[in-house]
Amino acid sequence: MTGPVDLAAVLASIDQPWSPRTVAVLNDYDVRVAHARGEFPRHSHPETDEAFLVVSGSLTIRMDDGDVTLGPGQLYVVPKGTPHQPYAPDGAQILLLEPSATVNTGDSPSEYTAERRVVEQ
Amino acid sequence: MTGPVDLAAVLASIDQPWSPRTVAVLNDYDVRVAHARGEFPRHSHPETDEAFLVVSGSLTIRMDDGDVTLGPGQLYVVPKGTPHQPYAPDGAQILLLEPSATVNTGDSPSEYTAERRVVEQ
Repeated sequence: MTGPVDLAAVLASIDQPWSPRTVAVLNDYDVRVAHARGEFPRHSHPETDEAFLVVSGSLTIRMDDGDVTLGPGQLYVVPKGTPHQPYAPDGAQILLLEPSATVNTGDSPSEYTAERRVVEQ
Repeated sequence: MTGPVDLAAVLASIDQPWSPRTVAVLNDYDVRVAHARGEFPRHSHPETDEAFLVVSGSLTIRMDDGDVTLGPGQLYVVPKGTPHQPYAPDGAQILLLEPSATVNTGDSPSEYTAERRVVEQ
């Protein structure tokens, strides 16, 4: 994890949606990238906020207070403990910021739960 | 700080280089954007890593081990305590990730030292 990271190159190497890769570690936080496509299960992270930045495409984050839709270069932080459901009917490339210990499905483990996968540079 | 953030819109509102704006807070971390132009003073952050992501343009990070040059969509984490000098002769728009308490000039305060400025959404 010592060199620069090209987000597009890492994203091009991922062949499944909702399968995040950790591309950088900042103290005890991860920078992750993933493809979003279709619906991800609703969940929350009781212990942490979670930041979403859209690299390409469009991502909707459904929450009880309403939907937030993000396009390229748009960022949103889901507050700690807030149920949210990412939804990308047409697909999106996304960047996530969260503590390294964060599990993608939060409090709602399922077949979508992903192991932490670190991309070595 | 409750709505989505459009990085390009915030960057368009900043009229000075090396003047970061905090566009989102994630737990006790900041997501900041800034314009880089010319040379920033060499410094280090004894207490934290610091992540740089280039949004547009080109940023070189000069370090004792060599230079790292980043283009759009490229990310680099400067390790804690590592002297570094950001340099962008042709300008760059950058995104920074670091603890909210981080001061831009680290251990080398100067006229470049910036107050933390949070953009309210």
